[in-house]
Amino acid sequence: MDMRSEMDVDADEPPLYVRVAGSIQQQVANGALRPGDRVPSLRQLSREQRVSMSTALQAYLWLETRGYLEARPQSGFYVRAPFATLIPEPRFEARKTQPTHLGTRAILSEIMESAADPANVQFGAGGASPELYPVRRLNLILRRLVRHHPLHSMSYDFPPGLESLRRQIARRASAAGCRFSPDEVTITCGALEAVNLSLRAIARAGDVIAVESPTYFAILESVSSLGMKVIEIPTHPQAGMDLDALERAIRKHRVKACIALNNCHNPLGYVVSDDYKKSLVELTARFDVPVIEDDVYGDLTFQGPRPRTAKSFDRKGLVMLCASISKILCPGFRIGWVAAGRFRAEVERLKLLTNVMTPALPQMVIAEFLESGSYDRHLTRLRHRLAGQVEFVRQAVAKYFPEGTRVSRPAGGYMLWIELPSRVDALKLYRAALAQHVSILPGTIFSATGGYRHHIRINCGHSWSDAHDRALITLGRLASS
Amino acid sequence: MDMRSEMDVDADEPPLYVRVAGSIQQQVANGALRPGDRVPSLRQLSREQRVSMSTALQAYLWLETRGYLEARPQSGFYVRAPFATLIPEPRFEARKTQPTHLGTRAILSEIMESAADPANVQFGAGGASPELYPVRRLNLILRRLVRHHPLHSMSYDFPPGLESLRRQIARRASAAGCRFSPDEVTITCGALEAVNLSLRAIARAGDVIAVESPTYFAILESVSSLGMKVIEIPTHPQAGMDLDALERAIRKHRVKACIALNNCHNPLGYVVSDDYKKSLVELTARFDVPVIEDDVYGDLTFQGPRPRTAKSFDRKGLVMLCASISKILCPGFRIGWVAAGRFRAEVERLKLLTNVMTPALPQMVIAEFLESGSYDRHLTRLRHRLAGQVEFVRQAVAKYFPEGTRVSRPAGGYMLWIELPSRVDALKLYRAALAQHVSILPGTIFSATGGYRHHIRINCGHSWSDAHDRALITLGRLASS
Repeated sequence: MDMRSEMDVDADEPPLYVRVAGSIQQQVANGALRPGDRVPSLRQLSREQRVSMSTALQAYLWLETRGYLEARPQSGFYVRAPFATLIPEPRFEARKTQPTHLGTRAILSEIMESAADPANVQFGAGGASPELYPVRRLNLILRRLVRHHPLHSMSYDFPPGLESLRRQIARRASAAGCRFSPDEVTITCGALEAVNLSLRAIARAGDVIAVESPTYFAILESVSSLGMKVIEIPTHPQAGMDLDALERAIRKHRVKACIALNNCHNPLGYVVSDDYKKSLVELTARFDVPVIEDDVYGDLTFQGPRPRTAKSFDRKGLVMLCASISKILCPGFRIGWVAAGRFRAEVERLKLLTNVMTPALPQMVIAEFLESGSYDRHLTRLRHRLAGQVEFVRQAVAKYFPEGTRVSRPAGGYMLWIELPSRVDALKLYRAALAQHVSILPGTIFSATGGYRHHIRINCGHSWSDAHDRALITLGRLASS
Repeated sequence: MDMRSEMDVDADEPPLYVRVAGSIQQQVANGALRPGDRVPSLRQLSREQRVSMSTALQAYLWLETRGYLEARPQSGFYVRAPFATLIPEPRFEARKTQPTHLGTRAILSEIMESAADPANVQFGAGGASPELYPVRRLNLILRRLVRHHPLHSMSYDFPPGLESLRRQIARRASAAGCRFSPDEVTITCGALEAVNLSLRAIARAGDVIAVESPTYFAILESVSSLGMKVIEIPTHPQAGMDLDALERAIRKHRVKACIALNNCHNPLGYVVSDDYKKSLVELTARFDVPVIEDDVYGDLTFQGPRPRTAKSFDRKGLVMLCASISKILCPGFRIGWVAAGRFRAEVERLKLLTNVMTPALPQMVIAEFLESGSYDRHLTRLRHRLAGQVEFVRQAVAKYFPEGTRVSRPAGGYMLWIELPSRVDALKLYRAALAQHVSILPGTIFSATGGYRHHIRINCGHSWSDAHDRALITLGRLASS
C-alpha cells in the first residue's frame, strides 16, 4: 500500500510510512521515547505496526530528514533532540497594496556575480549540488541520441516543440489532476521564459500584475523589465495570499494577471491547500483574470502525494501552468514549458518571435528520461535528500543564529526563509557575509516596495559539508553583532 | 598571394582569382570564347596568367557558381549560355514612411505550418540542406565534450555566456574590422533573441523603429510583438536604405533605433558598400540613434573577403551587432550573440530575466569548432555550394517564369527576391503553390504597410533536385496563368 505514494492524487490519507512515523513522534511527544534513546529495530517496528520492512525504513528515513532521528553507523536510529522544531516560523507582514513600478535594481547583477564566484559558499542563487542529479544517465541518453539522430542540430523544430516531450508532460500533469492535452503544451527555454511569454501574451506595458509578497525576485524583475507594474498581495508565510486582498486589488486596480507559486513557494516554502487553489481559480475566473502558476518546485514536496496545481481546478483555460526540469534534472538544459490554456496560440507566436524555438536535442533527452520510469525513482531520492539538507540548515540556524530568529518549515523545494530580529539589516548582512565568502540573498529583493529588511533567503540545495556549517556559524555571528 | 583572400579586410583590390576570372569573362564578352567552347585547361591558365594552379581552379569554380561556366566530368570547364545574367534585378519601390503598428498577422503561423510539412517542396521558411553542414564533426565534438565535461547539464552559466566562445567571436569579428573585446559579447539563443534583447534594451512600447523595406518578416513581427511601431525606410534593391529618407524619419518621428541587414540582406541579397556602412553609422550617431545590425548571413558572401560590418565603423558604442551560427553551422543549437556596445549591461540583465542563460554544451561545441580551423574550410565549401544553388534557381526562374519577371542577384546568403509582373497577386500565388505542395513566401509579409504584392522570396538553401526543378516549373506556370 505504501507503494502508491507519489502519484496518487486521490489519496485522502497520508502515506502509510507517514502514519507509522507519526506513532514514533507520538512516543517522543509523550516521553515514551526520549532524546538519546534507540528506537525499535526495523524488524521490531515492522512486526509491531504490521507493515513491511521497507515501510518501516521509509518511516525512519522520513523522521531522520525531519530531524527527529539520527542514524548511527552499525547501530540504528536514535531519538535526536528536536531543537530545530522549536524555532518559530516567520510572521505574516502586512504590505502596502499599491501598483509599483520597480525599475532596475543594481543588486541583481551583483548577486549573479557572487553566485558565479566559486570562492563563495553558495547559500545565495538557486543552484543545487550536481551529485543530487542523474548526470550519468542523462549523458548516456544524450550520447545515444546523438548517434541515432545525427541531424538533431539541423532541425528547425518550431513551436510548440517536441511532441514526445509534450506527451510526457501532459501525462504527468494528468496524474496530478490536470486535464490538458499535449497540444496545449509549449516548450520553452526554462520556466522563467515560460512566465515571460505568458505575461507578454496577456498584458502590456503599464498593466498591473498581482504577485505574492514575498515572491521570487526574478519574477518581480521580469514583470518590471516588460514595463508592467506589480501589486504585492499580503501573503501568509504558511497559508498563501490573502485572497480578500487579492479581490480588492483586482476590483480597484484592474489587475491584468496574477502570478502564483502555490507549491513549495519560493521563498516561503509552503504548499497551499487544494481549497485555497480552488478559491484562487474561482476568484480570478470571476473577473476573467489569468493566473500564471509557477510550479517549478511542485515535484519536490518532502512527503505525501504530488500536490495538485491551481491549473487542475481551471475550467475556463485561464490558468497558465509554467514549470521546468531545471530544479529536478538539469538547469543547464534550459527546458521548461507552459500549458497556456486559451492563450496557447499567442504564447506559441511569441515564442517563435523571441527565439524561434527550443533546441531539439535536450528535449529528446528529457522525453526519454521521463518515459523510462527512472524519473520517479530519482524524484523519491531527490526529495529525501533535499528534505535532509533543508533540515540540516534549519538546525544549524537554530544553533548559531541570534535569539528571536524565525525560520520557515518548507513543505518542499530547498529554500529557507529566515526572519531575523528586526534590528538586523539584511542588506548589510548580505554584504558582510559576502566579504567572508558566504553568499546569501537579502529579503528586500523579494519585495517591490522595500519590505523584508530583516529577512534573508538561504538556498539549501548544496550537500551539507563542514564548509556549510562554518559558513552558518559566520552568518550567525554576523547577525548577532 | 591568393591565400590572403577571405579575412583580409584591408585589401583594396579584389582577390587574385576574381581578377583571373575577370579575364575569362572579358573573353566571353568580346566573343573570343563563345557558349559551348572549352576554356583553357588549369595548367594552361596557370601558365598564361602566372598564377598557381589552385588560383586558376578557384577562378573557374567562381565562374561556375556565377553561371558562366559548367564543369563536364573528365573533360573540363565549358562556357555556358549565360542566360540567367540577362534577367533584370528587382526595381526600387518608394514606400510610405509613416510609423505603423503592425498588429498580429495570422499568415505567420500558416507559413510555419507549411514549413513543417515534409510533403512540401521548401522554398519558403529559412532552412537549408543538412548535407551542406559539418554534422558529423559537430557530433564528434559533442560526444567527446559530454565525456570530458559530464557536469555540463548542471551548470548555471549566467550571462554573458561561455568565455571561450565569446573569445572566438571577438577574434573573428576583429578579423572583419571590429574592435570589441570578448567581454562585450553576450551569448543568446539565436540571433532573433539577440535582436529582441537589443530592442528591449533601447526602446519601449510605442517607440518608433526604423527598418529597411523590404526586411526579414520576423523582425517586423518581433518589433510589433514588443508594442513598438515600425517605420519603413525606402530601400534600393542593390544599394540599401535611402539614407536621406532615414535622416528625415529620424528628425520627424523621433526614431528610437534602426535595424539594418547590411551584409547579404534578407530578402534582397545585397552587400552594401563600406562607404554606406560608414555613412549609416555617422548619420545615426549624430542623432544618438542605436543601430541593431543583423549580420546572420555576413559570413556567406559568394566572393571576395568577408565584408565589414557597420559595427566596425562604430566609435560611440551605438551599434549592436547581432549574429548566430544558425545559417552557418546548425540552426538546432540556437546559439547567437550580440556585441551590444554601451548597452551591454542592460542586454545581459534582460537575458537573465528572459530565460536566465544559454545552455552551456552547444556553446562549448561551437567554441571548439571555431577554434579548430575547420570553420574556414567549411565556410569556403558552404559559400561555394550556396552560390551554385542560388544560381540554379535563378536560371530556372529565367527559364520558367513569365516575361517581365525580375530576380535579385544576391552577393551571398541563399535567398532570392523575385519581382513578378504587377498583375500577379503574390498572396494568391502563395496559396495556389501550397495547394501544389510548393511553399514560398509572399512579398507582403516583408512590409508593414502592405507593399510587395507581386513579389515573392525563394529560399535556395536546399540542394538542387528534380523535385525543385519541377516545383519551379509549377510556380512559373501558376505565375503565368
